[in-house]
This record gives sequence, C-alpha cells and structure tokens, in this order.
Amino acid sequence: MKNDANVAIEIVKAPTSKIDSVDFENLSFGHIFTDHMMVCDYENGAWKRPKIVPYGPITLEPAAKVFHYGQAVFEGMKAYKDKDDKIWMFRPLENFKRINKSSSRMAIPEIPEEYFMPALEELVKLEKDWIKKGFGNSLYIRPFVIATEAGVSASPSKNYKFMIICSPAKSYYTGEVRVQFSERFSRAADGGVGSAKAAGNYGAQFYPTGLANAEGFQQIIWTDASTHEFLEEAGTMNIFFRINDTLITAPTNDRILDGVTRKSIIKMAEENNINVEVRKVAVKEIIEAANNGTLKEIFGTGTAAVINPIAGFGYQGKKYELPKLTDSYASFLKDALMKIQYNLAEDKFDWRYLVE
Amino acid sequence: MKNDANVAIEIVKAPTSKIDSVDFENLSFGHIFTDHMMVCDYENGAWKRPKIVPYGPITLEPAAKVFHYGQAVFEGMKAYKDKDDKIWMFRPLENFKRINKSSSRMAIPEIPEEYFMPALEELVKLEKDWIKKGFGNSLYIRPFVIATEAGVSASPSKNYKFMIICSPAKSYYTGEVRVQFSERFSRAADGGVGSAKAAGNYGAQFYPTGLANAEGFQQIIWTDASTHEFLEEAGTMNIFFRINDTLITAPTNDRILDGVTRKSIIKMAEENNINVEVRKVAVKEIIEAANNGTLKEIFGTGTAAVINPIAGFGYQGKKYELPKLTDSYASFLKDALMKIQYNLAEDKFDWRYLVE
Repeated sequence: MKNDANVAIEIVKAPTSKIDSVDFENLSFGHIFTDHMMVCDYENGAWKRPKIVPYGPITLEPAAKVFHYGQAVFEGMKAYKDKDDKIWMFRPLENFKRINKSSSRMAIPEIPEEYFMPALEELVKLEKDWIKKGFGNSLYIRPFVIATEAGVSASPSKNYKFMIICSPAKSYYTGEVRVQFSERFSRAADGGVGSAKAAGNYGAQFYPTGLANAEGFQQIIWTDASTHEFLEEAGTMNIFFRINDTLITAPTNDRILDGVTRKSIIKMAEENNINVEVRKVAVKEIIEAANNGTLKEIFGTGTAAVINPIAGFGYQGKKYELPKLTDSYASFLKDALMKIQYNLAEDKFDWRYLVE
Repeated sequence: MKNDANVAIEIVKAPTSKIDSVDFENLSFGHIFTDHMMVCDYENGAWKRPKIVPYGPITLEPAAKVFHYGQAVFEGMKAYKDKDDKIWMFRPLENFKRINKSSSRMAIPEIPEEYFMPALEELVKLEKDWIKKGFGNSLYIRPFVIATEAGVSASPSKNYKFMIICSPAKSYYTGEVRVQFSERFSRAADGGVGSAKAAGNYGAQFYPTGLANAEGFQQIIWTDASTHEFLEEAGTMNIFFRINDTLITAPTNDRILDGVTRKSIIKMAEENNINVEVRKVAVKEIIEAANNGTLKEIFGTGTAAVINPIAGFGYQGKKYELPKLTDSYASFLKDALMKIQYNLAEDKFDWRYLVE
C-alpha cells in the first residue's frame, strides 16, 4: 500500500506551554520534555501522515509487541541555536539513514525520508523557544519506533508507532568518568543486533554496568563476545584511544554502532593532521601502552556528550589512571566539533543543517 | 522500602464478558485475550499490591524506558482443565523463578513469590470459563514486566509494571516445520542476555527468521555466535536431536534459555530409559548423522507447542529431510507430558499444580 501522498504535517498545538515552569539552569539529562511530540502510525502496510500533537501519554494494548518482543529502535539527535536565533542540526540525514538501518534489522518497516525530515523539522521549529542560546545548550531529540500490534506470538508486528519527543539539554558533564574493560559480560554477538540502535541492546547493559558502578567505574568498555581480547565500544558511546600521537578506534561491524559523532571525529582528526587508525584495538596493547606511558588518552564519542574524556580504567582487578594533558585531542576535537554545531566555525564538510 | 504487607489481591470485575463472542474452535495463537488482567506496579522502591482489573489498554509516557531501552522480560505458562473441572498448571514455580532470574539480568527488581503466585492463581480462577476441556486446549498465560519510568537517559528505570494477561489456546499445530541452521546471524552473545527471557532477544530474531522463511524454512536453529559450529536453540524453543536411540540437547549456558519443557522432557526421557546426552551438539555431527541415516529426529520443546517435531532442515544451501517414524520419541514424550499436564496420568515428579 502507498504511504499518504500529502506530506504536509498536521499540527495540533498545546493550549498552554509549560516552558515557564522549567529551570533551564538545572536540567538533568532526558527528564523534561517539551510541549509537543510527533506521532506517525504504520497501519495496513503504510505509514500514515505524521502529526504533531501536545506531548502526553500514549495508550497501548498490554499485548503490544514492543512490551513482549522488544521490537523497537531509536535515534539521538540535537538542535542548536546560534547568536542570530538560527536553528541548526548536525548531519540529521545520517540519523535518518541509521534509524532505517536499525529498523530493517529489527524487521520494522522503514520510514520514508519525505516523512521523517519534515516531521522532524516542523517539530523542532515549533519547539524553538526550548532551545537556549549558549555553547553547550541544545534540544535533545529522540526519534523512536515501537511495535504496537497486540499479540503474544513471536512474529513481527503489523502496526508501529514512529514518534519524536524532545528534551532540553545543557552541556552534558558527568564528572570524571572511569571505565572498566569487560572481561565477562558482552554487549552484542557477531551476527546479532549490536550495530542497530535497538532498544534491547541498552537494557541488557544495565546489570553489568551496575556491577561496574559498585566497583567505582561509571561505564563499561565492551570487548568482543568471543574472546574479550578486543575493545569495541562503551554502552552509549564509541571509543577512541590515543597512543603517543595516534588515535585508534575499532572499525564498525555487526556489534558496533556506526556513530555519527565517531565518524565526524575521525574526519576532523584527519583534517587536523592527527594520525587516525581504524582497526581492532587489543586490550593487551592498551595495557602495555598504559604501562609504558604511551597511552595518552581515552575518550568516548556520542550525541549526548559529544566527547567524554576518560580519566582512568580498570582491568583484571587493576586500576590505571590516565595522564591529565593540557593539549588533549579530546578537548581540541570536542571544541572544534561543537563550534561547527553552533555555527561558530567554518563548516568545511557541510555537516550543519539549517532548520530555520 | 517494604512491599505491601497485605497480599490479598484486589479484584475489579469486568461488567460483562466477551467470552460468547469468541470462536473457541478457531483460535489463532495469542490474539484473543480474556476479560481480566493482573497489574502490579513498582514505585518508590517497592512492589505495590497486585490488582486484577478488566483487560484493557494501558497508558504510558512516550519516554517510558521500555520503549527506548527494552528493559522488559516475560514468561509463558499454561493452565489446563481436567474432566472434573479441576484447573491445573505445570510447574509454575519454575516460571516464577525464571522471571526473576531474567529480571535480575535486566536490572529489574525481583517480584516476591507471595505476590506472583496469588496474583497468578486469582487471575486463572477468575478466567476459568475461558479454559476449555479437551486434550490440547489450554489457557496461555503471559506474565511480563516492563520499565515505565519516563526518561531518555540510558539507566535502569525506577518504576515498573508487572502484568499478567491470558489468551485461550488450542493445541498448537503449525504444520510441517522445517528449520535452517544459522550460518551468519546469532541469537545471543556469550556474556549477553540469551539465557534471560528478555523482550529484545525475540525482536532481534524476526529479520533473520524472515530471510529463512523466504527460503522455505519456518524457523532458525541458532548456532553459537563465535563459531557457528554448535547448535543451540530455536527462537522460542529448545532443541533436541535423536541419533540412533540417543537424545542429545545442548547444555544451558549464557546464551540458551533454561526451558521448563526442556528439563521436563529430559527427565521423562530418562525415566523411560531413553538415553539422553546433555552436551554440545556440533553441526558437523548432525550433518554426518543425516548423511549416514542415523539422525532419526529433531524436535523443539517449549510451553506453546510442548513438542514441535521438525520435518527437515537446511544447511549451507542443502536441504535434508528427516524420516517419518511411527515410534518417534517426539510423539511419545509429547503425549506422556501432556497426560501429566491434563491430569490423565500419574504425576511422579510432582509437576502438576492444582489451582482450583
């Protein structure tokens, strides 16, 4: 069946705004939502016209397949406001492509670009007052798709709901982050869904991460499930290692998310004559480099934090501290990338996307 | 915080029943639900008193963590009615233990036994008219837990909803089932959540299963993710192979669900002097046995189908057919197990559980 041909987004405005009740100076990440949300239903083999409606609860059958079979994918994006009140996004088409790649792996029908992009842009425009000026302030945008058909037989849903919700965000600072290299638990299997932003990949990490927390680590660096000899990614971030002046990060594969920030950082590093190696990263190599003083930095990359420097790590019961550098690649690259995002620097790669 | 001390279940009855509108002769599995459902909320660090209310939609924030992080687990159980209108279940405490084991792996708080069992039993008693007499008829029971806290930060939910819904079921017959041995895709990683009945494990299988369907196979037999050399389980069933007169099934591990039907079948086979080997099953061994005629049977075990005989399988582009036996272990064990479930045979192992 054809998708609705007329793509004009229907908008039902919230009668009042709750924006005045929000303390924008003290936002904890991902808990306050804006006045509106986007809803687009898939029924009878087609995506219906996207609608923007007041943010509020949704009603589903208790037998909805998302509850039982985890058929759900999501994305994370941000919108920024520059000094002239222009609203920008960062490579949104990459997220659009990736949500469809994730959906495809999870047997969810792909969303047409002519639905995703206007729905996203109209929502961001409508919520522009929620985007505060200032380096680090942003609107975090969460597109997601869930299986809504009622049925407890394990087969793909016939119905879906694609939604976008938004949450105002401040610069994401989590304090000093120390990570534990995983020796036992795994994030994803070869031939599994690790490269998809599938909901179940994240819930599966909570328990092992809790164990790491109890040992004083904020996050886990996942190793390959077969041997636990290679470092792959953090729970919600890709991961980079700097040995001497070379940045090293694992190649994307079945188990590793193809991060938009990751690939942007690789590009920017290369542009700035930093040597980047995209190759398998052995735990052994990192331990050796830590021991002989050539391991200079570890940092994670992702939409929420942009770049999250790692202060230290643990492996086989031993703790390692990283040096505190005044000329870190993490700081340099984070600043350079954010300047592009906030329209404060030239955009050589055409990554910035003007919403309004 | 303490859980509610008073465990009497609150019951709000549906004003009318929809039972007369249901065609019990033509039930498709898992699509019709009974008049009531059980709901038990976790808030402020404690499970609240379970309630039975009319079956109906539930309302959640679009930011509820189940939608974004797949923090969700479930169980599958059945209730049976014997000729004297007594209602029985089959080893329900095993499912209770397993939902908590699954929950623990998914960082979900465990449900107290004094909540789970009375909530389950009261609901089954209330829905007893939905359980039809007759060998093969049953009430399929689906307990599940979902993360309900609104928040798009990847951390365990503070709030949960434990629910039980019920669906009348006929004898589960899917026609001749042929399976494909997986050569590329995987169900679970070592150190992952494959041994938990976590929602995301199931949605992750839909896409590869769809590819197998297109090649004429109804299901996939998953192999280990590291080498694809060992046969582990089917999507929703454990799997047994009969070579000559020996039954072989993989040991449970991180990747394989500890199936209640699986362990009951092992026990019954042993009781009936069938040689059972619980050990790794190499693809190579099964192909050799198929080629030299010693592979007699393959069957899956699970709550829904009890035992599902496999008619043939595919591997590396080649198709293999299994012999049609008049004295199959699958038929014998299925009949023997169901007779216990339906109170038609002696219950040596004390597996039957009288509800009413």
